[in-house]
Amino acid sequence: MRVSLLAYTQLNPDAEALPEPLRQGSGSTPERLIEYAGRICTRSVDKMGHNPHFIAARIQEGHESIVEHASFTFLVEGISRACSHQLVRHRIASYSQESQRYCEMRKDDPLVTPPAVEADEEAHAVWQQAVDDLSEASQALRERGIHKEDARFLLPNAMATRIVVTMNARSLRHFFDVRLHPSAQWEIRALAREMLRLVYPLAPSVFGDFYERYIEE
Amino acid sequence: MRVSLLAYTQLNPDAEALPEPLRQGSGSTPERLIEYAGRICTRSVDKMGHNPHFIAARIQEGHESIVEHASFTFLVEGISRACSHQLVRHRIASYSQESQRYCEMRKDDPLVTPPAVEADEEAHAVWQQAVDDLSEASQALRERGIHKEDARFLLPNAMATRIVVTMNARSLRHFFDVRLHPSAQWEIRALAREMLRLVYPLAPSVFGDFYERYIEE
Amino acid sequence: MRVSLLAYTQLNPDAEALPEPLRQGSGSTPERLIEYAGRICTRSVDKMGHNPHFIAARIQEGHESIVEHASFTFLVEGISRACSHQLVRHRIASYSQESQRYCEMRKDDPLVTPPAVEADEEAHAVWQQAVDDLSEASQALRERGIHKEDARFLLPNAMATRIVVTMNARSLRHFFDVRLHPSAQWEIRALAREMLRLVYPLAPSVFGDFYERYIEE
Amino acid sequence: MRVSLLAYTQLNPDAEALPEPLRQGSGSTPERLIEYAGRICTRSVDKMGHNPHFIAARIQEGHESIVEHASFTFLVEGISRACSHQLVRHRIASYSQESQRYCEMRKDDPLVTPPAVEADEEAHAVWQQAVDDLSEASQALRERGIHKEDARFLLPNAMATRIVVTMNARSLRHFFDVRLHPSAQWEIRALAREMLRLVYPLAPSVFGDFYERYIEE
Repeated sequence: MRVSLLAYTQLNPDAEALPEPLRQGSGSTPERLIEYAGRICTRSVDKMGHNPHFIAARIQEGHESIVEHASFTFLVEGISRACSHQLVRHRIASYSQESQRYCEMRKDDPLVTPPAVEADEEAHAVWQQAVDDLSEASQALRERGIHKEDARFLLPNAMATRIVVTMNARSLRHFFDVRLHPSAQWEIRALAREMLRLVYPLAPSVFGDFYERYIEE
Repeated sequence: MRVSLLAYTQLNPDAEALPEPLRQGSGSTPERLIEYAGRICTRSVDKMGHNPHFIAARIQEGHESIVEHASFTFLVEGISRACSHQLVRHRIASYSQESQRYCEMRKDDPLVTPPAVEADEEAHAVWQQAVDDLSEASQALRERGIHKEDARFLLPNAMATRIVVTMNARSLRHFFDVRLHPSAQWEIRALAREMLRLVYPLAPSVFGDFYERYIEE
Repeated sequence: MRVSLLAYTQLNPDAEALPEPLRQGSGSTPERLIEYAGRICTRSVDKMGHNPHFIAARIQEGHESIVEHASFTFLVEGISRACSHQLVRHRIASYSQESQRYCEMRKDDPLVTPPAVEADEEAHAVWQQAVDDLSEASQALRERGIHKEDARFLLPNAMATRIVVTMNARSLRHFFDVRLHPSAQWEIRALAREMLRLVYPLAPSVFGDFYERYIEE
Repeated sequence: MRVSLLAYTQLNPDAEALPEPLRQGSGSTPERLIEYAGRICTRSVDKMGHNPHFIAARIQEGHESIVEHASFTFLVEGISRACSHQLVRHRIASYSQESQRYCEMRKDDPLVTPPAVEADEEAHAVWQQAVDDLSEASQALRERGIHKEDARFLLPNAMATRIVVTMNARSLRHFFDVRLHPSAQWEIRALAREMLRLVYPLAPSVFGDFYERYIEE
């Protein structure tokens, strides 16, 4: 699995376009935007930067909507289709996923092998044989003239996929809440950890609680 | 594939609770609710039932939000996981899907075989062999102590699944628009047709355009 | 303020269309649908009705999405535009609101008077005068040929409005969580109480926690 | 009315974190991100930048979801509460609005006067008198001890408000489609024009069709 942060909400580089309190300031830019939005609600933009706990306090009291103004876009590569099926169930997000319908699957396409299978020699042998058989069968179907969109019915959940995912910080917090939990499945949990590692440095006030609970210790 | 309409938005059976214009009236109940909502916007509830084209006209002019008040819940059985992965990408909807993570997959679990495979004897033989091999491999993994949530990585897209789906009429119209189109994949297209057949009689003013284009002819 | 329950999700009256476990059963129909959806996830539909705490337990453990399959449609009359502005900020919902743009506002259109104003004779006199002045001014503008959509700029927040609202049970639970809280504004709080009173008898397992906390005591 | 673009989706400034095809390239960054997401679906990232019409073609064919990855955050000042009530009805968006509940309204708080009222001397005199009366009445209520949250019931729709709005490009396109239309109300139409002017230069492929239709001519 490889997760990259492709893009995220950043202040307008044309500083002249910004209202005074946003022009100068400390803190990463997603946080400054979020604090500014929160202070619009209570007419306190003149206090920007006075209280380092402003964002965390708003989240604490349930006024979480202000963090929605910042969003983050990830490229996720090498997760299984089992995992992507779970991922796309999160509805407050945007996805662009590699289609199995139009893309020719190649012999050397990567698979995600569960660690428990890799750790057991005999299980791994069974796995490897099954995967090779499938690949051959799929190829044989293609040679009989079966279209890609039908041949892919034989592809296993383990097939790796590639997907671009955008979530705003609130939706991301919900994703972390559900998917970092020890009861979550190992693969999506690993994905959530990678995503958290990438966004935490950009918005520690927004994601600090999850970082402390799940990454630091 | 089997699609059943489990439930849908119906008027409160306690007629005393309803405002006068909803108490008596013609038309199926989702349509009466939708017309009533539309007439609240323009203060014309006294004209309920006067214009049989009221709903279609609102949709035509882009005032489609009124149809959101009615929603429909389906049980979908026997679609492939390839199809359910497409389905759940529709985000303005609610889903409850049979989990592969907790459910033991059984030998006789049904698969969805693409018609093109079924139609070609040789392709079908390849397919059958591949499916049998997979089933055995999956079983062998389970016997090595691999957990269900990992053994399922070998399960193919063709595995049938069961899912409860709720969409409101606007979201359903969008689904029909995209998935009844000839360029849509055969399985989700067949699903869309089944859903349309079920809802059309309950709300012909809402779904008539799709019914005429895709079912009647 | 008057709140009526216009419609809600009910089982398909054509019982033949329903799967066996839904055909016969106890519990109100939204609850039976919700339990059925929850049991699809874990392949336990054969246990329908065995556990009266099934739904509450799912909500407790955070598996709240199953309650989304049921939605409820209300007619809300006689709330202020201040209140409707707050209400429509809840985004996972559908609204059809009486338009001030196309509807002629009449002299005798009702206003929502805050209880604190009604309780203070002097304040009430000030209020009444202001309201009469406004009504006259608005009329004078109309007579000068100012269009309704511009004359309404003078209408106060206190103007009563009428709105049809549909929320699914999950969104409704969130609404109750935020708006029944003692810190919520009195008018939207009263609205939330009315809505809860109407839906609780239809789905006590879904709304029981809020009912016990905010209504019973 | 004053509209500023506070922030928007920009590529990760840490170029090392980006996949090769995103590191170098032409076009504004929201467009590069969108094209990249679109090309992930069809495994054609190696063709980044080859086709200047790539994004417009995807939109044309209804594959509009790729533009959701880019979002834009605006500060909107000096629109009426009538206008903000319309604005927040757009549900696929995030809002942080100045609260009338907690903020003391000041005598010199700006109002939005409809151009048609300003253009008619007599109408304007009526308007001015009404506004002054209201302001006095509201002050009198406050002096009687009526809380801000109740005194604001007298405030007219014309009261100016301040709101931070974030929409992704798809939601923005829908907003432009509905609100730039000649039948839209003048104030929200002016707002839509200002927003379009700000985002068009950053993503001409995404918003070009609206710009040509509504701004250029």
